[in-house]
Amino acid sequence: MAKEITPRSENYSEWYLDIVQKARLADNSPVRGCMVIKPHGFAIWEKMRDALDAMFKETGHVNAYFPLFIPKSFLSKEAKHVDGFAQECAVVTHYRLKTVGEGDNRQVVVDPEAKLEEELIVRPTSETIIWNTYRDWIQSYRDLPLLINQWANVVRWEMRTRPFLRTAEFLWQEGHTAHASADEAMIETRQMLDVYATFAEEFMAMPVIKGVKTANERFAGAEETFCIEALMQDGKALQAGTSHFLGQNFAKAFDVYFLNKDNQQEHVWATSWGVSTRLVGGLIMTHSDDSGLVLPPKLAPIQVVIIPIPKPSPELSEVADKIAASLRKRGISVKIDNDDQNRPGFKFAEYELIGVPVRLGLGARDIAANQVEVARRDTKEKQSVSLDGIDEYVEKLLEDIQQNLFNRAKQYRDEHITKVDTWAEFEDVLEKKGGFASAHWDGTTETELAIKEKTKATIRCIPLDGELEDGVCILSGQPSTRRVLFAKAY
Amino acid sequence: MAKEITPRSENYSEWYLDIVQKARLADNSPVRGCMVIKPHGFAIWEKMRDALDAMFKETGHVNAYFPLFIPKSFLSKEAKHVDGFAQECAVVTHYRLKTVGEGDNRQVVVDPEAKLEEELIVRPTSETIIWNTYRDWIQSYRDLPLLINQWANVVRWEMRTRPFLRTAEFLWQEGHTAHASADEAMIETRQMLDVYATFAEEFMAMPVIKGVKTANERFAGAEETFCIEALMQDGKALQAGTSHFLGQNFAKAFDVYFLNKDNQQEHVWATSWGVSTRLVGGLIMTHSDDSGLVLPPKLAPIQVVIIPIPKPSPELSEVADKIAASLRKRGISVKIDNDDQNRPGFKFAEYELIGVPVRLGLGARDIAANQVEVARRDTKEKQSVSLDGIDEYVEKLLEDIQQNLFNRAKQYRDEHITKVDTWAEFEDVLEKKGGFASAHWDGTTETELAIKEKTKATIRCIPLDGELEDGVCILSGQPSTRRVLFAKAY
Repeated sequence: MAKEITPRSENYSEWYLDIVQKARLADNSPVRGCMVIKPHGFAIWEKMRDALDAMFKETGHVNAYFPLFIPKSFLSKEAKHVDGFAQECAVVTHYRLKTVGEGDNRQVVVDPEAKLEEELIVRPTSETIIWNTYRDWIQSYRDLPLLINQWANVVRWEMRTRPFLRTAEFLWQEGHTAHASADEAMIETRQMLDVYATFAEEFMAMPVIKGVKTANERFAGAEETFCIEALMQDGKALQAGTSHFLGQNFAKAFDVYFLNKDNQQEHVWATSWGVSTRLVGGLIMTHSDDSGLVLPPKLAPIQVVIIPIPKPSPELSEVADKIAASLRKRGISVKIDNDDQNRPGFKFAEYELIGVPVRLGLGARDIAANQVEVARRDTKEKQSVSLDGIDEYVEKLLEDIQQNLFNRAKQYRDEHITKVDTWAEFEDVLEKKGGFASAHWDGTTETELAIKEKTKATIRCIPLDGELEDGVCILSGQPSTRRVLFAKAY
Repeated sequence: MAKEITPRSENYSEWYLDIVQKARLADNSPVRGCMVIKPHGFAIWEKMRDALDAMFKETGHVNAYFPLFIPKSFLSKEAKHVDGFAQECAVVTHYRLKTVGEGDNRQVVVDPEAKLEEELIVRPTSETIIWNTYRDWIQSYRDLPLLINQWANVVRWEMRTRPFLRTAEFLWQEGHTAHASADEAMIETRQMLDVYATFAEEFMAMPVIKGVKTANERFAGAEETFCIEALMQDGKALQAGTSHFLGQNFAKAFDVYFLNKDNQQEHVWATSWGVSTRLVGGLIMTHSDDSGLVLPPKLAPIQVVIIPIPKPSPELSEVADKIAASLRKRGISVKIDNDDQNRPGFKFAEYELIGVPVRLGLGARDIAANQVEVARRDTKEKQSVSLDGIDEYVEKLLEDIQQNLFNRAKQYRDEHITKVDTWAEFEDVLEKKGGFASAHWDGTTETELAIKEKTKATIRCIPLDGELEDGVCILSGQPSTRRVLFAKAY
């Protein structure tokens, strides 16, 4: 606990790294750009994964597992896909090491005789190997839809990395579905976008905007990319999940046909969709404060901590155990801190730091008065509450915290969507206020890139709920029929 | 359904591959030695993983995630470890591809300018990178024990592969714990061996023998390797899980010290333990028959299938839905097969093939008689059962099947442990009867290797519950104090 957390106002980027380190979420590793996800960080990811997995299964998907390695030549089969991913692949060229030297001089070298005939890439995403497999699995419309997801690690050789937000290796899920018609594939694409949005808002308490990406920001190989975009506390946007309508592109690249109901061979229609450990970064940046991590109760590995004051005793333990039992009966996860080395003040700071939503401080005087001190992490308010019905009180408090975090984030987000109609306003919003600038754009990649060049802002999405409205492009002055959302982004 | 399943008696190895393919457990992939785990196979693995994960957490472990890649030089830090793993590593040497040519001649090549300074190996196991990390996490005895597990994919470049049993990439869990004393580490090692044995017997219905590996079969870098050994239906043994007491070997290799209670610096004590998707192979080979997969109910993704006979109708559906609801209330997973294209006989064969433990055949005449036909997969017995209390009946039947599978496998296994006292008996058992030969051995690696050379049999383990008994080694005639178990193995 040597160094304090850097305040957000001082240096937001340092604050983020401090939270990741001090809340024990992740650690650097000796491998460039790869992080170690520590137990507390991983427990949050596990809760995300379990909630998402249940939602995928409810919508008819099953899990499977495809190889980590992809033959190099697969990457070039889909013309746009190769340009998107060849730049950032880890390449396996050999399958054996050997040792040379003796004693202290002994070292390991790559065995030149164990060179692969065809190099393998470590999957940056699995469309190619999966569609190569689907060719054998799909013969007729009776084999469709094929609704498969996989939880996996992927590698993209990023040059500038940040824990959770951008790492060379990351954990994710990738859904890959196959359909008999474009309509059905589009319905699936939209359904999974809705699943992501529901998860983000109801579990992460992170409001998101559903939208479509521009051609320039589209996934390499997709016909249309849908996304959910969130806003971080520093006014930068975060792409939190994407769902792609792939048309017949991968079916054509890998010769995947099905016999339709009219007995004709047709290329299969596809979608893919994914979210990753990046969500943990989004979670941190949406709710946390200068005292540490703030977690929505639904994703908190420990929801309630009970701290005996000033230190554990048989009398306090008995009451703490009773409270814990009554909370656990309601499905609430509880930790009783029976450590007798550290003082309450130290512990309070520690649980604030790691984001436990509710803290119960229990002293002898409290017990005598049949009450307990309840502190909520989101607002830091404290209150003495009767021990009678404490379980029900805490359950409602957790729901209230979940809702409050969402409301707070939504208010911030809504206040940071600014309609701008001139270039001056646009620059002003990006530089001073931050957040999304809702502006007219002429629809060309040329203008989009010019704006990015001038301001570093990108078009985050064309919102799905946006209205048609005549206007002129903030840069080119050309006519436009709808506003899009610009922001600087992670 | 073109080709029938090869009978076990005809060709056990073909039978195994047929089950894997026809029960839709796994598929070959275009990457040498890597398999695709299909949804049905993955659902079984998920059930294994969830059961094991709960057992790990009950014993105080938490999950984390460490990088896929390990710097090449790490491998050589533990002298024995490097010899065990250097031979079979996938090596990443480059981090970028590039495209050359235009149009139809366009292809991807490795970018020679994107060569890594130090090559990375894809983890074959994670002791090295984890102990390199633990150096930063452990300062004093207060940081111990550190009880961490990870679920991950690992790669060992195997030359001869078989789905689930031996693949280049496989899924597994690896526990890596750190302790303040040798005793505590040894207790942990044994505890996790017990967890594995309990899981194998209670969930997989697969009896196992707990034992110690000989020095020759020990994990590269361990002081002592404990294992559970199972017996397959062809008389070959399968190592189903290992738990290693690592002593201070990795702490010494990576300079991991802790300040003990006497305020002295000491190297940390370690364990590691793992089971993998290989267990799915063991599960198949323990219970399945010539009609297909046989699954213990606790690991069956679908426990009960209800088939309307001869085909779905509103009347049958109503009753089927009621039965399904009453079963689901008891936590039983049920599928109602409302497909109206295939005939009951086809469906019966199909569900036998994929190993659904209980099948309910429901016809109009059954309903009139207030009964349903219940078929159990393990014995293929069929019986008409009253619809009153069918949920309770099925629940008990599932328990009975679970127990029956274990008893059957245990009887077979026990019948195939043969005490032998001469070389002739030993060879005879290995050649004709199969299974474990319980024999005296002089304790030398030299004799162990000579026996392997002559018979292909290895020492599977020195059983933990073995008794001291004077005897002479079957090969060398040297004195021995206890029997060990030999067998041919997967």
